[in-house]
Amino acid sequence: MTRKRLEGFTSFEKYEKTLSRLLNSVETRIDKEAIPVIEAVGRIAAESITSPRDYPPVDRAAVDGYAVRSLDVSGASPSNPIPLKLIGSVEVGEAPQLTVNPGEAVMVFTGAVMPKGSDAVMPFEESMRNGKYVYALRPLYQYRNVSRAGEDLKSGDLIVRRGSVIKPWHVAALTEVGITRIEVFSKPRVGIINVGSELLGRDHLPGIGYRIPNSTGPLIYAYLKELGCEPILRDVVPDDEEEIINAVKKALEGDDIIITTGGTSVGGGDLVPEAIAKIPGAKLVFHGVNLRPGRTAGAYVVAGKPIFMFSGLPVAALVCLEAFVRPLFKRLTGVESLPEPTIRARVRRRISNVTGFKSFFRVVVYYEDGELLLEPLRLTGSGIISTLLKGNAILVVDENVEGYDEGEYVNAILIGPIYDERPAFLE
Amino acid sequence: MTRKRLEGFTSFEKYEKTLSRLLNSVETRIDKEAIPVIEAVGRIAAESITSPRDYPPVDRAAVDGYAVRSLDVSGASPSNPIPLKLIGSVEVGEAPQLTVNPGEAVMVFTGAVMPKGSDAVMPFEESMRNGKYVYALRPLYQYRNVSRAGEDLKSGDLIVRRGSVIKPWHVAALTEVGITRIEVFSKPRVGIINVGSELLGRDHLPGIGYRIPNSTGPLIYAYLKELGCEPILRDVVPDDEEEIINAVKKALEGDDIIITTGGTSVGGGDLVPEAIAKIPGAKLVFHGVNLRPGRTAGAYVVAGKPIFMFSGLPVAALVCLEAFVRPLFKRLTGVESLPEPTIRARVRRRISNVTGFKSFFRVVVYYEDGELLLEPLRLTGSGIISTLLKGNAILVVDENVEGYDEGEYVNAILIGPIYDERPAFLE
Repeated sequence: MTRKRLEGFTSFEKYEKTLSRLLNSVETRIDKEAIPVIEAVGRIAAESITSPRDYPPVDRAAVDGYAVRSLDVSGASPSNPIPLKLIGSVEVGEAPQLTVNPGEAVMVFTGAVMPKGSDAVMPFEESMRNGKYVYALRPLYQYRNVSRAGEDLKSGDLIVRRGSVIKPWHVAALTEVGITRIEVFSKPRVGIINVGSELLGRDHLPGIGYRIPNSTGPLIYAYLKELGCEPILRDVVPDDEEEIINAVKKALEGDDIIITTGGTSVGGGDLVPEAIAKIPGAKLVFHGVNLRPGRTAGAYVVAGKPIFMFSGLPVAALVCLEAFVRPLFKRLTGVESLPEPTIRARVRRRISNVTGFKSFFRVVVYYEDGELLLEPLRLTGSGIISTLLKGNAILVVDENVEGYDEGEYVNAILIGPIYDERPAFLE
Repeated sequence: MTRKRLEGFTSFEKYEKTLSRLLNSVETRIDKEAIPVIEAVGRIAAESITSPRDYPPVDRAAVDGYAVRSLDVSGASPSNPIPLKLIGSVEVGEAPQLTVNPGEAVMVFTGAVMPKGSDAVMPFEESMRNGKYVYALRPLYQYRNVSRAGEDLKSGDLIVRRGSVIKPWHVAALTEVGITRIEVFSKPRVGIINVGSELLGRDHLPGIGYRIPNSTGPLIYAYLKELGCEPILRDVVPDDEEEIINAVKKALEGDDIIITTGGTSVGGGDLVPEAIAKIPGAKLVFHGVNLRPGRTAGAYVVAGKPIFMFSGLPVAALVCLEAFVRPLFKRLTGVESLPEPTIRARVRRRISNVTGFKSFFRVVVYYEDGELLLEPLRLTGSGIISTLLKGNAILVVDENVEGYDEGEYVNAILIGPIYDERPAFLE
């Protein structure tokens, strides 16, 4: 029986194949919700929005000065000042009551609506005033110092595209044109079920004891929150088929995505896959993948909903979240995300890959003599969460790469600040 | 009078000087609060935490197999199998009741506590079984296939450093060692006061009219939320000294940082600085800085609390948030943030700087023939928020750089996805 448990893993499927099968098998639809624009920063737009109007709505003064007719001052110069009759002023925020006729000017302040007839603003500092007259000292081309109607946005201009992460400038532009609510994707509900009789329940404090705290559950919870999901962390489930089936069935009722950990090929045996297989309609998507850590991962779908089976070891679970859950989230929301912060560094100590595996090395990046160096951590078991506390970057090595020699340059994903010097723990 | 308004700006102070004076003038203390570790992802640790114990707490089996004494099997080989008497098993999550004496073995599953006397696990697949006996086929060094007590964390190991942004692995490590609450910095309360008679109040919809929506307020609100602050957006204040004084005084009661916009050198005149100057204890930190856009910015402190005066134009305000508020946030919390995503691209059209100014160009980055190219947007007034909708990167040009010629390589900060081709709006 124990030998049988390992049979499924005599070969590990290529990651890209498992991922594409997963993305094609999932039929989850993410809900949308309309929320106030001002609260929408960081959310993902579920609709494209174009401007319903021009903005600014009317021509406005862009500086403090005098609204004039540009033709009137075309011949002005310091030696030929052109006088204009000052007929009044327009206050900011008020309707202009005056019309500027040839030979006239109206005092305006930045933001004021341009009075009828005027088409340029002569700044105070480029003019002289004498009682009821102002003198132009230089010519102004048409619309000089005028903020034109529609110069920022024209009716029909795209403001935000479906799938965009909403940024402060989207909020500002939507506000400008009077849009106060926006449809965003609801945060996908992701149920987390940690399986393992060795795990302490949620409300138990760790002792010296025989059971250990469930740290992989909170890890996944925190990761999903950061990703933009609504995680639901359920209490731990012992290595018992019926309890596993019940927990997954309950999660299927309300959750969009379900993540189980533990019991995929070790410890309590293949309990989780065997339990999920008994749920009506369950279809296996994959089981076993050429990721290190994380090779025992698998997934089923039930009525188009994904049920992941990840390792109970925290680092392996984290790699699987990156490898499967992040791309799925991207697919479901169409989100266009920015690249992760990446640095280029010189390998200081050889990194050896296991043939055929796409490996995620936790590495340390530091400065030495002004140069960026990179070293793998020595102890890297997938249960060793401290590798992520000490390591500050992840180096992904593809399955067809044997490794990197000392002196080679590699790109790694930064997950923490760069060390100023080689940290002592590397010795 | 209008000339006088501009006098303060005959010279613009160097940005670095204004920033360092600001950071030295502010005496705000950010509150701390203890929150559940599981909810702490993304928050900033206000305390350093070291592990109070070793983790794992005891030696555990790392594979399924037989717990043995490594000395017993040191001579084992396929041609010399060594028999061990199977005396029982340890279930995962249970206390081991048995002791492994010389010549004995106990069945264990991954995660089970190692029984007394044993110091290695012989995997099922590296052994044979015959009734009450198991046969070792190869030697095992001490602690082979054992997850050692303390191999992840030792008592006293640093888990999270004060000023760290809390990541999922911090949550996992804290949970492992039984820490359920952590002190984080409270989100600084930042009051936003938008001054301008041209602005529509919060509950007014835009018309064709003489007043425009307050888009800079929501822009700042969204930016601060993203940064990790608790923004408070108050209703707009007209160009009226008394109303400005009252609004700032009210904000000073509860807020850690106050941001005003508008009325710094244009429109209603120097109303805001003149108003703030009348608040008892107000000390000017700077007014006028060599940033483009954003040169009219200034700041006061009152009892160590900063009161910023930013432009009412959205792009100028955004530059000032980056230039002053982000570094201040960093100083107050000690946060160690990761670098922003930066790309290197070739300049496709010359970018000219204004001598003496540190300028923030909104640029477009796109692929052409497999190469990354970068072009500035043509229309870039600081009121033109659409430059941030179309632009997908910011190029910061230092005051002593005249510009960049076509063909030069520059680094820019990505603020949106890279275009697949040269966008049509650049024509």
